[in-house]
Amino acid sequence: MKEKRSGPMPKIPRSSDNDYTHDMSRTRREFIARETGTQLNHLGHYSIPPETLSGNIENFAGVAQVPIGFAGPMLVNGEHAKGEFYVPMATTEGTLTASYSRGMRLTREAGGITTTVIDDAMQRAPMFAFSDAREALAFGRWVEQNFETIKQASDSTTSVGKLRDIEQYAASKLRWLRFNFTCGDAAGQNMVSKATKAGCEWIQANYPRPIEHFVLAANLDTDKKHSHLNSLHTRGKRVVAEITLPKQLMTDIMHCPPEALFKQRQYSNMGALMAGSVNNGAHFANGITAMFIACGQDVANVAESSAGFTYAEIMPNGDYYFSVTIPSLIVATYGGGTGLATQNECLSVLGCTERGSVNKFAEIVAATVLCGDLSLGSAVVADEWVSSHERLGRNR
Amino acid sequence: MKEKRSGPMPKIPRSSDNDYTHDMSRTRREFIARETGTQLNHLGHYSIPPETLSGNIENFAGVAQVPIGFAGPMLVNGEHAKGEFYVPMATTEGTLTASYSRGMRLTREAGGITTTVIDDAMQRAPMFAFSDAREALAFGRWVEQNFETIKQASDSTTSVGKLRDIEQYAASKLRWLRFNFTCGDAAGQNMVSKATKAGCEWIQANYPRPIEHFVLAANLDTDKKHSHLNSLHTRGKRVVAEITLPKQLMTDIMHCPPEALFKQRQYSNMGALMAGSVNNGAHFANGITAMFIACGQDVANVAESSAGFTYAEIMPNGDYYFSVTIPSLIVATYGGGTGLATQNECLSVLGCTERGSVNKFAEIVAATVLCGDLSLGSAVVADEWVSSHERLGRNR
Amino acid sequence: MKEKRSGPMPKIPRSSDNDYTHDMSRTRREFIARETGTQLNHLGHYSIPPETLSGNIENFAGVAQVPIGFAGPMLVNGEHAKGEFYVPMATTEGTLTASYSRGMRLTREAGGITTTVIDDAMQRAPMFAFSDAREALAFGRWVEQNFETIKQASDSTTSVGKLRDIEQYAASKLRWLRFNFTCGDAAGQNMVSKATKAGCEWIQANYPRPIEHFVLAANLDTDKKHSHLNSLHTRGKRVVAEITLPKQLMTDIMHCPPEALFKQRQYSNMGALMAGSVNNGAHFANGITAMFIACGQDVANVAESSAGFTYAEIMPNGDYYFSVTIPSLIVATYGGGTGLATQNECLSVLGCTERGSVNKFAEIVAATVLCGDLSLGSAVVADEWVSSHERLGRNR
Amino acid sequence: MKEKRSGPMPKIPRSSDNDYTHDMSRTRREFIARETGTQLNHLGHYSIPPETLSGNIENFAGVAQVPIGFAGPMLVNGEHAKGEFYVPMATTEGTLTASYSRGMRLTREAGGITTTVIDDAMQRAPMFAFSDAREALAFGRWVEQNFETIKQASDSTTSVGKLRDIEQYAASKLRWLRFNFTCGDAAGQNMVSKATKAGCEWIQANYPRPIEHFVLAANLDTDKKHSHLNSLHTRGKRVVAEITLPKQLMTDIMHCPPEALFKQRQYSNMGALMAGSVNNGAHFANGITAMFIACGQDVANVAESSAGFTYAEIMPNGDYYFSVTIPSLIVATYGGGTGLATQNECLSVLGCTERGSVNKFAEIVAATVLCGDLSLGSAVVADEWVSSHERLGRNR
Repeated sequence: MKEKRSGPMPKIPRSSDNDYTHDMSRTRREFIARETGTQLNHLGHYSIPPETLSGNIENFAGVAQVPIGFAGPMLVNGEHAKGEFYVPMATTEGTLTASYSRGMRLTREAGGITTTVIDDAMQRAPMFAFSDAREALAFGRWVEQNFETIKQASDSTTSVGKLRDIEQYAASKLRWLRFNFTCGDAAGQNMVSKATKAGCEWIQANYPRPIEHFVLAANLDTDKKHSHLNSLHTRGKRVVAEITLPKQLMTDIMHCPPEALFKQRQYSNMGALMAGSVNNGAHFANGITAMFIACGQDVANVAESSAGFTYAEIMPNGDYYFSVTIPSLIVATYGGGTGLATQNECLSVLGCTERGSVNKFAEIVAATVLCGDLSLGSAVVADEWVSSHERLGRNR
Repeated sequence: MKEKRSGPMPKIPRSSDNDYTHDMSRTRREFIARETGTQLNHLGHYSIPPETLSGNIENFAGVAQVPIGFAGPMLVNGEHAKGEFYVPMATTEGTLTASYSRGMRLTREAGGITTTVIDDAMQRAPMFAFSDAREALAFGRWVEQNFETIKQASDSTTSVGKLRDIEQYAASKLRWLRFNFTCGDAAGQNMVSKATKAGCEWIQANYPRPIEHFVLAANLDTDKKHSHLNSLHTRGKRVVAEITLPKQLMTDIMHCPPEALFKQRQYSNMGALMAGSVNNGAHFANGITAMFIACGQDVANVAESSAGFTYAEIMPNGDYYFSVTIPSLIVATYGGGTGLATQNECLSVLGCTERGSVNKFAEIVAATVLCGDLSLGSAVVADEWVSSHERLGRNR
Repeated sequence: MKEKRSGPMPKIPRSSDNDYTHDMSRTRREFIARETGTQLNHLGHYSIPPETLSGNIENFAGVAQVPIGFAGPMLVNGEHAKGEFYVPMATTEGTLTASYSRGMRLTREAGGITTTVIDDAMQRAPMFAFSDAREALAFGRWVEQNFETIKQASDSTTSVGKLRDIEQYAASKLRWLRFNFTCGDAAGQNMVSKATKAGCEWIQANYPRPIEHFVLAANLDTDKKHSHLNSLHTRGKRVVAEITLPKQLMTDIMHCPPEALFKQRQYSNMGALMAGSVNNGAHFANGITAMFIACGQDVANVAESSAGFTYAEIMPNGDYYFSVTIPSLIVATYGGGTGLATQNECLSVLGCTERGSVNKFAEIVAATVLCGDLSLGSAVVADEWVSSHERLGRNR
Repeated sequence: MKEKRSGPMPKIPRSSDNDYTHDMSRTRREFIARETGTQLNHLGHYSIPPETLSGNIENFAGVAQVPIGFAGPMLVNGEHAKGEFYVPMATTEGTLTASYSRGMRLTREAGGITTTVIDDAMQRAPMFAFSDAREALAFGRWVEQNFETIKQASDSTTSVGKLRDIEQYAASKLRWLRFNFTCGDAAGQNMVSKATKAGCEWIQANYPRPIEHFVLAANLDTDKKHSHLNSLHTRGKRVVAEITLPKQLMTDIMHCPPEALFKQRQYSNMGALMAGSVNNGAHFANGITAMFIACGQDVANVAESSAGFTYAEIMPNGDYYFSVTIPSLIVATYGGGTGLATQNECLSVLGCTERGSVNKFAEIVAATVLCGDLSLGSAVVADEWVSSHERLGRNR
């Protein structure tokens, strides 16, 4: 590595004319290489047209090449996702794709995974402060009475987003309004910020009594971080994936009878309760993250989307009922990174590029998560976990 | 899109000979294209040598091209990270890189960000069940007495990992041992699984009384999901980034005086407490995720790494003290995806490819998070948040 | 102490005829004394008529004499509690009554405490299990559509309780219905169990599709234990007490200027966040418990009632705004222990024995809590805390 | 009720000479009666000698008469509690004593309850602030190195309390030291405040570098409120009560086979996880509170003591293993209210007045909690819950 320059470092080059060009991308790579003494041989190797990136990135200088493997086929009996799917996973964690594939084989032989989107809401939660709690309470009632007009103001900002309802949360002289929207195929965070802002402007203009302070967000939403509120009341999609696995099949494929996996579930529930974990399952985040990167999702939403509930039962006939619930799965098939080159191809592989496909995508993600949790859970119980990482992973 | 084939879908092609070749990658792309009727024009455009991917992915078929922009320069006064850095961010969220850059400009003019790694531990938490709680307690004491020998057994499996201590957590007749390791430059999850397993094998062979059940993990760790335990006792690195910002500078650059940002902090603390959020800050996950993708980290660890604490003060002279604490930042500069083509280049840009650079990388991540939280917080307060998404983002 | 009898211990004497008599009370005391070798000189010293205790206790054998001190006068500007109050506190913790009195003196000189009941709901949350999540979702919609008829069934069981709404919470194939009732002056736990049961019987008789399992409660309520859900959505009364304290007054009476108390608040907020505490205040439970014992409340509800939020501000003129919010304050002025001898006298001292006085009582409790938190907070800051326990408490 | 006086209310009478006399008690009752127009016929009926109350209450004016019933006999196979016990319960909730008695009958016929105190610590957690996190970290290391001397300073303040260890928790530039003490038979809150203060005075006098701020407590302890930290690391005693119940016995006595109770446990675990409850059991708080009032405990500690973990298994032979873990049970058999008249009699009934009996008392409380949870759980499952409240309670 060459020595870095001395003296204060210069600004990164930008073009005020058109910043989304191969030229500017190369200019910046050369700049970074020069300033940091690093050879950039791979960063500039991409097929993504720079002009498609306006709105997705600033100071574009190349791409991360994240390896994609396909898992599957996975059989899903969803309301929206029906049939078999090859699931694209972008990851650098060895064994991950193989492990999910194993769960997909098991669930496919068991007849497929049932998936259901049971709730849908994206939100922004502005906060209003008043002189005291009584004023805040009066405001809350006024908001309830004026919901339809607030909704008009909010909905007028977007052809897609629809204000569904406004929850209220109160402490001290403060009142949070949690605006819940449906957002079509978009994840909707920006859409709802804009729409909520418009609703709040109407409120501020029309509320007949004094408001001490207003702010568009103050951590109740909660965005880009987990909250218990989100697990209770959904952020994005709330999706359930579930299956009943024949006892014999589990023993044959996973080397782990239902009783053993169920016992592990009991221990894991206690562990999660004691640790104060936001998920009593195994590793939802792995499948979610790998699909998010591959399919152009906002990967930072792994923060919210990785929370969840696992619930299992031994059926009277000895079969194993297993389910995962993802209460805050933030997904999109339109907007954000979904239209970019490789990302759109991956969505297309899943048949999720058409209008109205976001719930289909949500169901596929949930089914994938179920496969991964079955596979890892069984591996831990059957004591094949460390050894598979030895064989397939970087543990060498 | 061509129609999908009817009938059950076939297995994804694999080569038992050598699966990590351009040939096999193309074979799988062609297979997926054929089976799903999707043209894959971009997925196969990569410069990453397939033979480097063994241990990182199975069924390799191409790459996700995730756009990278550089933010900065950012000035850091760390114990390990000293000087100015251009920070690579892989994201598809418009305004993100620009917003972090704004925070970097502010903090640089204020003299730079102080960063400190205050704790370091990666863990696996096996569980032991006994006939009753009294037996479990006796076991716990025996483990304490035999720590050195257990450590020998664990440490013998790795030249890098060192067992630091074993915490114990107990409920009912169950006892979890939380093995804490330092792992050099690796994130260490696999390393500690193997080492903990070896420690537990020694325990099982030598504990003189009956153990009813043993399992290598039962959700107390907690891996790939947030837990309060991890926020209390660190998983990965515990890093603090902090700065004192002159009042005038904040007003000039952020259009937001300290008092206004501090008031917003009060509201945000209440919002986070009421929501039951795992982070009272703004959007740690955004910066962390963008750097994780760019730099070859295990991105699923955003689940744990996105938790955190924000603490601020108005100083007697009116300046603004601001800090972020990331209690479970899971990072590596060796192993996992860190050696891959673009990922390694990004680490190199940060000067984080040498042995012993993991804490440097952790500090740069924390400093970046601080810049992003300052920038977004100020934008919310100055009411520039929605409008900047209008200008730079996809909100059109 | 006399030796205990050998052999298995006999049953406690009961009268199938009339168990609530002085005779049976004495018979049991003599029995216990004989069996355990303990002299019971004080337990039988009571003025409470045994015949009033049917419905409050079984195997009655005497009373706990819990010392009562009065704090105050406390000045309250509530919606329901208006004027000055002497507050009965039953406790054995030295300094407690004195400390609350100090807070009452401060707040009285500052013009009194504003109190508002901002929400009111008691609940039972039955759970219904189905064959899968899709069935559970369909059931949820059916419940929404049939709310009015369910309400009729529930409300028919009580002249006081009114079903307000039914929240729904879902995971896996399970669906919880959180029935929210208003309950007049009663705490209402039993009333709502009965009413919810009736509602669920109607549901079970009329829901046209199969229900796999029903149970009247499965920990979502949550009863006799704190839950985050209760803090978000209220169990019992949600009450706010607040005041703005002149800077000079705080310094004079509490030896603690607003800035110092506010700084401590910042530390305490961080401490509470990090500890994962259900209350960021000081010691809500002390005042609540002392009033609960004195006034015939169900003291076990301290489990829920001790949660809360504290929020403070330094006003532009340097005064101190301080508030406490109790989100799950479970109180009654009718039913339970409220009609018992000393308990009713204490409620009467507060003017809370008339019909419709439960919110008045709730406000007095909240105001008391505020006084105690101000007093302890100031003592900690002014370093008078340990020394006052030295002077007044048992620390000798 | 007579009208209240107009004009500001006067101070409550106190005697600067001797405030703990029958005279002063009556003077205050007469004062309260006069000022509030309330007849106080029962409050003054007590046998407790006022002179014993100094250190337990201020402004003493009488007693709350809380009815006590005895439950049992309960059979305990503890390390400290061995044999059968009649358990005094002070409550006004009808059915409670009867329900606990039912559980005691079941467990006694099953051979008794195994109890174990598995941890013991009372704490105070002072906070130290520094100029930055690096200084805070250096301080933390210095504290570790100087533990023995700090311990000397702390332990010198008390003949009973022993500093066991100091945990450290860090965020930003703040560092909390969690001083853990054993406290003999005392609950120890005041003892450890004093001892921690002494330790911190030594620290402040001897730490060679600047400390920006020190405060003896800032909500990490956490006192008089639940925290996850306390559930993880024990506040007071951590006690387990457990039993294996023959299948036939459960069906005979509880009308509830193990499978049914276990299924309910699965639902309850999910309910608790989703609600964010601090206890996945049924109603620990009821038994704890009733015993706390009867036995002179600090009843406000129900806030902490009501948290807990329930764990159950179906054994291979169909029997039911059931356990409760109380991680923060704050109990005393010396100090506080334990020496008062009726309270001491109740402790004596349990054989818990001798030196060294605090763990015995803790075990009896835990065993009682187990009985109550078995009884209520079975009643809910067998659908006898509402009907028993109809029969025995106030639901009429």
